[in-house]
Amino acid sequence: MMSILLEQAQTAVRAAQQKAVEIGVRMNIAVVDAGANLTAFVRMDGAWLGSLDISIRKAKTARFFDMPTGELGKLSQPGGPLYHIEHSNGGLITFPGGLPIHDSNGRVIGAIGVSGSSVEDDHAVATAGVAAVRDVH
Amino acid sequence: MMSILLEQAQTAVRAAQQKAVEIGVRMNIAVVDAGANLTAFVRMDGAWLGSLDISIRKAKTARFFDMPTGELGKLSQPGGPLYHIEHSNGGLITFPGGLPIHDSNGRVIGAIGVSGSSVEDDHAVATAGVAAVRDVH
Amino acid sequence: MMSILLEQAQTAVRAAQQKAVEIGVRMNIAVVDAGANLTAFVRMDGAWLGSLDISIRKAKTARFFDMPTGELGKLSQPGGPLYHIEHSNGGLITFPGGLPIHDSNGRVIGAIGVSGSSVEDDHAVATAGVAAVRDVH
Amino acid sequence: MMSILLEQAQTAVRAAQQKAVEIGVRMNIAVVDAGANLTAFVRMDGAWLGSLDISIRKAKTARFFDMPTGELGKLSQPGGPLYHIEHSNGGLITFPGGLPIHDSNGRVIGAIGVSGSSVEDDHAVATAGVAAVRDVH
Repeated sequence: MMSILLEQAQTAVRAAQQKAVEIGVRMNIAVVDAGANLTAFVRMDGAWLGSLDISIRKAKTARFFDMPTGELGKLSQPGGPLYHIEHSNGGLITFPGGLPIHDSNGRVIGAIGVSGSSVEDDHAVATAGVAAVRDVH
Repeated sequence: MMSILLEQAQTAVRAAQQKAVEIGVRMNIAVVDAGANLTAFVRMDGAWLGSLDISIRKAKTARFFDMPTGELGKLSQPGGPLYHIEHSNGGLITFPGGLPIHDSNGRVIGAIGVSGSSVEDDHAVATAGVAAVRDVH
Repeated sequence: MMSILLEQAQTAVRAAQQKAVEIGVRMNIAVVDAGANLTAFVRMDGAWLGSLDISIRKAKTARFFDMPTGELGKLSQPGGPLYHIEHSNGGLITFPGGLPIHDSNGRVIGAIGVSGSSVEDDHAVATAGVAAVRDVH
Repeated sequence: MMSILLEQAQTAVRAAQQKAVEIGVRMNIAVVDAGANLTAFVRMDGAWLGSLDISIRKAKTARFFDMPTGELGKLSQPGGPLYHIEHSNGGLITFPGGLPIHDSNGRVIGAIGVSGSSVEDDHAVATAGVAAVRDVH
């Protein structure tokens, strides 16, 4: 199993942090490796305290099922096929802000989770983080 | 209390695994005994990481209430009689993929839980596992 | 990161189970992969109920620190350098019965944990499991 | 309450990481703020999996009681005044590797926790992290 390296994880965090500054929000930013283990994390000054845990859970959730957290959230609504999947794995977060990170061959090597603002902002910042990751040669 | 034997649990796991191979999915497969304790488990190579915990919770949930997890999920919807029952027992999973296992006299002797694909696939693989269990003489 | 395959994990479990039968004990046997995730598990009929959780924790502990659980236990005694390390990672088990599993190049690819008898028996059964694992070609 | 800023926390992490490279060890490095909340974290490639959780607990423990974790560990031994204090706060780690971080007025503004090698190495790396923190003007 290929897994994200610390250098790549830190690149993702930096890019996400820069995006957060650009749009004027204060974020918690977490990157997990292919094993869903925390690899890099920053909490920007003044970010919501409750978002710390959420950012890490978003990253883990995105890796647990290799999909954006918001996609899982569509399936876990009342009446949906995965209603209340959030009760598994010690607690999932299934609204936007968590995204898997792939290598250039399309393999999932980790995931990023962002929390601290609206879910639209969280998702935008996570997207900026993912976009910055490059294969390591 | 009559309880499933390891031999029967492994038969269920093998049959479920064979069904998973046939339909081309990678599953986590768990069997619990009459006391809802894990008895046999396999995680197929490359199965979703987040499905490990879900497969075990499905098996436990099916034995906790002696019914298919999907049936419980119908009752736990907003406005339903068992709304939010998922909060009990350290976290239940109430969508399809968990089934009780009966002996030939109709007594529940354990349960199987499967997770790794759509809930329809999970349910089909669990069903194949249950169907393979025979009384031990 | 190379990780144990299900086929290898099941080979380890089978060999451990056979050893347990030979010495007349009833064991819980767990194998985790390189990410410390449960990969294969069996509970022999009549094995201690409380040993289920211990076997899984032994396997995880052996992988968390890439050493036999009993070695960690020597370091975690009162006055020792790692006193009370057991409080980390949701609860470790640091007496014998957990062993890392290596590939032929010496890399840790997983671990086995055995519980159900004396720690000497647990260790012997785990050792039999490890010895049976071969590289997959 | 004065609290460490992200910039300072990252300075501590970077200095600790550099020290780890110098002495040839792979560490998990965590910094918490004055509220004992994770502020910055890195896991070096190949660091022990079980040390992730320990590094964070060391940082929290050092801030919970505003002393080096190893000092607390002297008091928590059998017969000592704080015997088994590790059971509090969801699990403490009381061997060396966690240190409070002070500002130039002597106020505790956060803490660092390091795990991944011997407790001597962990402590040395944490010390390097603390030494790098400067007041922000």
